[in-house]
Amino acid sequence: MTLPTPGFSFEVGAVDGAARTGIFRTPRAVVETPAFMPVGTQATVKSLTPEDVASTGARIILANTYHLWLRPGAESIAAHGGVVGFMKWPHALLTDSGGYQVFSLAKHRTIDEDGITFRSHLDGSLHRLTPEEAMRVQALLGSDVAMVLDECPPGKAPREEIERAMKRTSEWASRCLRTEPAEGQGRFGIVQGGTALDLRMSHLQTIAALDFDGVALGGFSVGEPTAQMYELLTEIAPAMPADKPRYLMGVGTPTDLLRAVQAGIDMFDCVLPTRNARNGQALTWGGRVNLRQARHRDDQSPLDTRCDCSTCTTYSRAYLRHLIKAEEMLGPRLVTLHNLHFYGALMREAREMIRLGKLGPWVEATLSRMHEEDEVGAPEG
Amino acid sequence: MTLPTPGFSFEVGAVDGAARTGIFRTPRAVVETPAFMPVGTQATVKSLTPEDVASTGARIILANTYHLWLRPGAESIAAHGGVVGFMKWPHALLTDSGGYQVFSLAKHRTIDEDGITFRSHLDGSLHRLTPEEAMRVQALLGSDVAMVLDECPPGKAPREEIERAMKRTSEWASRCLRTEPAEGQGRFGIVQGGTALDLRMSHLQTIAALDFDGVALGGFSVGEPTAQMYELLTEIAPAMPADKPRYLMGVGTPTDLLRAVQAGIDMFDCVLPTRNARNGQALTWGGRVNLRQARHRDDQSPLDTRCDCSTCTTYSRAYLRHLIKAEEMLGPRLVTLHNLHFYGALMREAREMIRLGKLGPWVEATLSRMHEEDEVGAPEG
Repeated sequence: MTLPTPGFSFEVGAVDGAARTGIFRTPRAVVETPAFMPVGTQATVKSLTPEDVASTGARIILANTYHLWLRPGAESIAAHGGVVGFMKWPHALLTDSGGYQVFSLAKHRTIDEDGITFRSHLDGSLHRLTPEEAMRVQALLGSDVAMVLDECPPGKAPREEIERAMKRTSEWASRCLRTEPAEGQGRFGIVQGGTALDLRMSHLQTIAALDFDGVALGGFSVGEPTAQMYELLTEIAPAMPADKPRYLMGVGTPTDLLRAVQAGIDMFDCVLPTRNARNGQALTWGGRVNLRQARHRDDQSPLDTRCDCSTCTTYSRAYLRHLIKAEEMLGPRLVTLHNLHFYGALMREAREMIRLGKLGPWVEATLSRMHEEDEVGAPEG
Repeated sequence: MTLPTPGFSFEVGAVDGAARTGIFRTPRAVVETPAFMPVGTQATVKSLTPEDVASTGARIILANTYHLWLRPGAESIAAHGGVVGFMKWPHALLTDSGGYQVFSLAKHRTIDEDGITFRSHLDGSLHRLTPEEAMRVQALLGSDVAMVLDECPPGKAPREEIERAMKRTSEWASRCLRTEPAEGQGRFGIVQGGTALDLRMSHLQTIAALDFDGVALGGFSVGEPTAQMYELLTEIAPAMPADKPRYLMGVGTPTDLLRAVQAGIDMFDCVLPTRNARNGQALTWGGRVNLRQARHRDDQSPLDTRCDCSTCTTYSRAYLRHLIKAEEMLGPRLVTLHNLHFYGALMREAREMIRLGKLGPWVEATLSRMHEEDEVGAPEG
């Protein structure tokens, strides 16, 4: 199925319940879905080379417009042929709009109907982000997929505030689409609506009616109970356009990913596997492993016996624990590589299970094994 | 030529003036000399995997006994088959005695004729390092080469203090040799004597008479002018046993290495290429490059056009500068890889030039090119 932007297509392959496999094509890249996008905030997936990242199975990564706009600057990156040329990533790239970081990182923001004025968290310099500017900067960054500027209200915002944010997000979405498209760059719309199913469904209708290449769900995983998110996804995901990629933004844990795949989501991004790695937390087929715990001190077994990444086939838990405790950079690097490898394997196996029509039983077996051995909360040493 | 410890040998190959190539064999590894040893203080060359390190041409690395003794503990490492099994380094390993760090890092040290009592810089726990304990711990660490415990007086110590340290170092050297040798582990003695040529020559005589597998020069690069070091090396190195490896400890810059090779030194170790990389300073065929300088902001050329390492063949100076400025871990990693690759290439080319009998002219040409383009001191931005 061709998508609105020339050179972009999405083909649904196998279907198993609400879940589906797909192939998302951009003029430069091919991405099998469901897919997890590692986060490369500042044009680098922290500690890894592009070669390392690709070895985990990832074929699309995310970079943060806010960060790259401020440093080193979008024009500087454009001169390198965009983020992919700058960091030498040979596959697909999605950029966010910058709005999320403006709200979470920038100082003294004021929002109006036209956009957001803020001061950089780096040097206090004044900037203005509008829907048009978000598209201009993303065009310079040269991503395969640009996200529209949206407003994501806080998790516990009152209904009226959520409705206002929805309305503004819809207007900004239309303004983004009216800007001159960048060569070879598709655009995804974003659905807001908090945890109210009726608001979500209503906003989905608005966004789904626009000429986007994909539709994203924003404002999840912002503090609401995960059970509530899973319930909402079960209703919302199947109502999203079936012939476009469905992207759940900023989510999540291995459990979140599997539940969302079951609901029909195709794409994910999250800092969890990379950020937790830097804190010494590994995500494995046997649940979370906290390498700071004393129990790993003399453990010569691999992090994850079911994993074939180079971290698991080479090093012992004792060595990884030593690196983390001694604050050696190789620790975050090796655990990041494993965590992304695990996320890649989770998505690859999910695709395989959808093709075999066995997604449900596989998800239950996988989750129960993970929860059994989960190590969170055990004492450190 | 076989060395005193079974399984160890050193064969001099080509000779060019005082310089020579050699092959140092241990029961487990083969090292071509002149050789630079990257420093892997805590059983990791910071930011790199063993595979990365080997790709730079390194076939022997150094680990610090003091650090590994305190954390994770020598017994824990012995259970992994020593440092090489713990970190999965497949080539040769040299460990220092721990003495240097006891003097530079530990708290409340008291030294007596028998050894040194100190408190750990990590947790304040009390420890005692004697010549025998240094050998016991290094046996557990399982290095190919263990260094004797020595006393290295401060650079500006008075002559009497240097003579006292020499005497103690000689006594400790004999005590180290009287300990039960560890299977497959050779031992190097250490020559002290500060910057007084007569003291150096006298101490060299003492140490050279003992049954060591190699002889090291300690106490250089501790604040004396480099010209003075080069002059002393020109006298001392040729007087060191010709049939054993000659190791200049803790040295140095590319210039230091080339001058010392010309004097007849075979082995080096230094934190400079790895430590400076983490500060954004690259060492190249064109001299030092400070990636923090504004001039590199939009520079799409490689770090070193004459280098074939993956950092130089893949990334631009602008991207490397961005990583360093943004404090991204990939920056130190990529620059460390380059710096060690450069040191490896410097040693490989020196060996080749010795074989061709062209070391002298090559050293002058190399140094003059480096000094021409050297970037130290240029303003940052």
